[in-house]
Amino acid sequence: MELGGTPKEIRQAIRQGRYTGGTAGLAPGHVQANLVILPKSEAYDFLVFCQRNPRPCPLIEVTDAGNPEPSGVAPGADLRTDIPRYHIYRDGRLEDEVTDIGRVWRDDFVAFLLGCSFTFETALLEAGVPVRHIEENRIVPMFRTNLACRPAGVFRGPTVVSMRPIPSALVPRAVTVTARFPMAHGAPLHIGNPARIGIADVNRPDWGEPPTILPGEEPVFWACGVTPQAVALEARPPLVITHAPGHMFITDLPDQALAVI
Amino acid sequence: MELGGTPKEIRQAIRQGRYTGGTAGLAPGHVQANLVILPKSEAYDFLVFCQRNPRPCPLIEVTDAGNPEPSGVAPGADLRTDIPRYHIYRDGRLEDEVTDIGRVWRDDFVAFLLGCSFTFETALLEAGVPVRHIEENRIVPMFRTNLACRPAGVFRGPTVVSMRPIPSALVPRAVTVTARFPMAHGAPLHIGNPARIGIADVNRPDWGEPPTILPGEEPVFWACGVTPQAVALEARPPLVITHAPGHMFITDLPDQALAVI
Repeated sequence: MELGGTPKEIRQAIRQGRYTGGTAGLAPGHVQANLVILPKSEAYDFLVFCQRNPRPCPLIEVTDAGNPEPSGVAPGADLRTDIPRYHIYRDGRLEDEVTDIGRVWRDDFVAFLLGCSFTFETALLEAGVPVRHIEENRIVPMFRTNLACRPAGVFRGPTVVSMRPIPSALVPRAVTVTARFPMAHGAPLHIGNPARIGIADVNRPDWGEPPTILPGEEPVFWACGVTPQAVALEARPPLVITHAPGHMFITDLPDQALAVI
Repeated sequence: MELGGTPKEIRQAIRQGRYTGGTAGLAPGHVQANLVILPKSEAYDFLVFCQRNPRPCPLIEVTDAGNPEPSGVAPGADLRTDIPRYHIYRDGRLEDEVTDIGRVWRDDFVAFLLGCSFTFETALLEAGVPVRHIEENRIVPMFRTNLACRPAGVFRGPTVVSMRPIPSALVPRAVTVTARFPMAHGAPLHIGNPARIGIADVNRPDWGEPPTILPGEEPVFWACGVTPQAVALEARPPLVITHAPGHMFITDLPDQALAVI
């Protein structure tokens, strides 16, 4: 199903159950966000974790406990219904995939929205930098690295990166274009030799699909929004809710609202 | 007293009581930071407040509760001793000015370090943009505005701005130069007519000293680190500790570490 309209109209369709698919390409030019929901008892440490690790965890919204409205980035939206698919984890294990979390919502829930790579990929394309996994309609390859996050309370773990192969001559442009968007992971963390950041085989990603790297291209690695999800799950809190991969929250913010200059 | 050396050497002199003066101009090229200390019971809401108001409250470090070492920005430093002067507030009122807070430190204290204007003023000067209050050796004028911060829990209040008069032809450069430093308040919030942001008389600042605005200059307003202090005090928590004005914490970070591009 093709879904057009404003972010608000698309969220409405999702809320009413008329759309349950992935959000890539929807509401082009608008910021999409990763979701992590935790009980308030775990929220403080998670918030400190995000502050200490802003590249993988660019926090664009924290809701008041019990309030499902992300009033800063999408007034009127409801995080219990406005995402196409959710994952519910108990004790670190996936328990359920649902299209609505109204039944499990609690008064002590805090929702975190984190910037995502869609924003900087749009910027790359607009700057004439090709993005391979979009060309090939595949899932971006993601890797655990040896770059430890700064821990906070129970939350700790390695930085996860996503990789895009970039023609050598365009690498500097890829850096400057994405650096403008620190709230969407910002500049790359690493360029070139994957072994330097602890990646043994760039053709065997930990998540996503294997890349096609052509002659004359460098692998370029950006901090990835899978990091906070992996960290939240490895801490095995009793309950965590996230969006299902590729099924993001669509905000009202234009991508350029996240640009610093 | 002139104090030279590395940030670490200067902090050592402060720790040993050999220096209790202001920090402007010390360790040039290194990030200085505002300090706010709160008991953990208030720290969560304050952290959310900073996330929601990043321009006035650019958070560069949050310590673990009870641990006075800001290990991210100054490993080995001790926030109980390494600032020349502290203000201790009880129930929102200034109770004491001290040079050491070891006696009052508690296991539930969380320290917040926030980026400060020294960083972007250095960048302005290096870009050839004059900074009037530095030329005149005065305190920058600061104003309450009608720009409300997004509240979080008990923390709420107006954005406080600082004002620098800039020659018209240099205003665009002043914007781009400071925009590179979102962790030091970033680009201006407002340029020109002070009434537009609720400032009745630009010659009567709420803090600091009146400005000298010359013909051909525009008043340019940046979000100010007094905002979180004012907000923290207006909430009247039982206990807040801050740095004394002008007596900042000197980090190991080079100013350029805060630049996004």
